[in-house]
This record gives sequence, structure tokens and C-alpha cells, in this order.
Amino acid sequence: MWTQKEINLTARQRGFHLITDEVLAQLPELQAVDIGLLHVFIKHTSASLTINENADPTVRTDFENYFSRLAPENEPYYQHTLEGSDDMPAHLKSSLLGSDLTIAVTDGKLNMGIWQGIYLCEHRNHASGRRLMVTLQGNSQD
Amino acid sequence: MWTQKEINLTARQRGFHLITDEVLAQLPELQAVDIGLLHVFIKHTSASLTINENADPTVRTDFENYFSRLAPENEPYYQHTLEGSDDMPAHLKSSLLGSDLTIAVTDGKLNMGIWQGIYLCEHRNHASGRRLMVTLQGNSQD
Amino acid sequence: MWTQKEINLTARQRGFHLITDEVLAQLPELQAVDIGLLHVFIKHTSASLTINENADPTVRTDFENYFSRLAPENEPYYQHTLEGSDDMPAHLKSSLLGSDLTIAVTDGKLNMGIWQGIYLCEHRNHASGRRLMVTLQGNSQD
Repeated sequence: MWTQKEINLTARQRGFHLITDEVLAQLPELQAVDIGLLHVFIKHTSASLTINENADPTVRTDFENYFSRLAPENEPYYQHTLEGSDDMPAHLKSSLLGSDLTIAVTDGKLNMGIWQGIYLCEHRNHASGRRLMVTLQGNSQD
Repeated sequence: MWTQKEINLTARQRGFHLITDEVLAQLPELQAVDIGLLHVFIKHTSASLTINENADPTVRTDFENYFSRLAPENEPYYQHTLEGSDDMPAHLKSSLLGSDLTIAVTDGKLNMGIWQGIYLCEHRNHASGRRLMVTLQGNSQD
Repeated sequence: MWTQKEINLTARQRGFHLITDEVLAQLPELQAVDIGLLHVFIKHTSASLTINENADPTVRTDFENYFSRLAPENEPYYQHTLEGSDDMPAHLKSSLLGSDLTIAVTDGKLNMGIWQGIYLCEHRNHASGRRLMVTLQGNSQD
């Protein structure tokens, strides 16, 4: 069984955002998968995906503060500067964090740890909504 | 062919540890896969997985020294501090290194380079054993 | 449908290089996949793979300058130094950026954003050609 679709995420401000529920709400097909894998891919180079703590919102605040120090704006050696001071750091953060995730699916649910959630990492100051390509495969229940 | 199981890793001290053999010992089903993929996912947000050099143990020591400088403890801007000074850096390292790996399987073996191995990256000072979710799919030999 | 093969990349100088076309030229089987996934794995620990901007070459120059600062040579605490000053940083960059990518395939094409391409991240000063293991799976068109 294969299901593939594009999911549109609502626009977020720069920072790290839990999107597990928003993704699952657009993927009811997952509930029919007994054993499988969910692949999630972000179709942009200035936002990224990661898995991390889903409970305390200060973790996401600390992520934004950390990664904006790790890949700072306005480094004197940056050559790719025409699209704004947040653009080159956004590309760097995108590759540090990654564009794709694969997560096990078991008995119709994502099989993650109970403290894990999917983060949209929005690296631009003024981004529109982002598009994900999701691919679900596995054995269907019947 | 799909196989999915949880694998329990023995507790390790903070640092980087080769676990290729420990994973394979709990996955005899892999030997029957002709062409396929192994997905390995760590169900925690303060430990991570990566692939790197499997021979010289000083590489793993250098990894611990490097990543503990890259994501240091006690940064004044950290807000998520209640679970200890090693906790927020552990979350950051987890997202820098990643929670999941996918590795090709060919003729019953992991198809990696000869110098590659799977690392458990343990970021907490006093962690218990860690749980992996492994999903194996492919064509079986017969 | 499963296809698995090793792809040899021509040697590149240290830096970040777009290889999307070179990979696709060696994978004509992809054109027959209706819905599927392409897994790309680099069989080395001193080079890596990432997805990023495919248009402006200064992005790749900025990547090389950034990552060579992020994982510098000759840190006094490095113990793994016998293979040259570029070797330990190469291992670190490999784990920061990652060894494997998975990309959706739709209607015979990689389903990425229009500004996305696959980068070979070459971290050694004098590397030979690199080997990728590619695994393609999905439903074939007919």
C-alpha cells in the first residue's frame, strides 16, 4: 500500500513549531497501516524538519535562540546576501537539521517515543505556508 | 516483506558508541533480505543516531568533545533547565545528529562502506538503556 | 518494484557540489516509478549528502566557508589526527550533514521543490571519486 500527497502547512513565524497533529489530521490513511513507514519531506531550502521534545514550549524557544547563534546573520564572508540577511542562515540551518524524516508506523499510529513530536523549523522572518510531500507505505489492516 | 520490532540497547555512558553488532544480533531477519532497506529510529529526544568511522575509538572521543562544545551546558539564554544542565544540550545534539537512519540491505547484509558503523550518541550523563524501533522491508531470498 | 545499484561519482575538490543530474543520469529506472521513494546513501565517513539551493553557486561557496569554521582543523583536543588535519573535521561534518537522504518519487521524477538539489559535500582536500548506494522502490507505471 502506497499513499502520497502534498500537505500544506499554515504560515508560521520564525522559530520551531510542533506540527504532528496538523500532519496527522491531513493523513487519515495512516490509521489503516498495520506495519509501515511515513516519509515526510519539506519542499523548501529555508525551512526544515526535525523530531524533538513535544511538551515544554521553552525547548522550542531555546532551539530558535541556539540555531540563530549557530548560523548567524551577516557573517562578513557570506556571498549569498541578495535575498536578505536571514536567507543564507536559513539555508545553513536547513542542512544542519535536514529536509526529510522517516518514522515507523505501527497499528495505525506513528511509533515515536511519548515525548517526541515533529517540528517545523521555520528559518525565514516572513515565510508563507510551507509544503510537505508525505509518502506512506506499509501493510494495510483488514 | 516487512519486519518491525523494538530493540533495547544496554545503558551507555555519555558519549558516542558503536552499536552495529548489538543491533544486528537482535535482527536475524535481515539475513533473509535480498534487496531492501533498514530503518532505525531512536525513541528518545536526548540521544541520537549517526553513521561514522568504526575503527579508531579516538574518533568517538573527539565526537564527544566536539559536540559538547558545539552545544554547551549552562548557556545564559536557556529557559529549559529544570531537568539538569545536560538536558537542553542533549535535545540540541539530538536534532543536530538526527533521530533516524535508513541503510541499504543487500544479500542479507547492511550495505555500508567498510569503515562505517552505527553510533548511538548518548547525550545524558545518567541515562538508562535506550529503545530503538527498527523496520526492515525488502524482497526475501528464496 | 525494487532497484538497487552502486553509483560512482567523479572526484570533486573539497566543497559542496550539485549532483542531482549525475545521479539521475545513472538511474533511468526512476522514470518508470509512479509513486515511490529514492534512498541515497554515501559509503564514506568523510563526505556527506544534503539537499539545498540549486541555483546560485555562491550558496555552495558559503556552505564550504561556514562548515569549515563550524568544524575547524587542528583543534587542540583532537586525538584522531594521523590521517591529516582535514580528516577529523571531515568526520564531524559528515555526521552534522548526514550520510543518507530519502526523496519522494512521483510520475517518474524526484518530487522536490523547484529550488532543491542534491549536494555532495566533499570534506577531504584530496578525495577520489565517491560511491553512492541508491535504492529505489515504488509502484511501476504500466
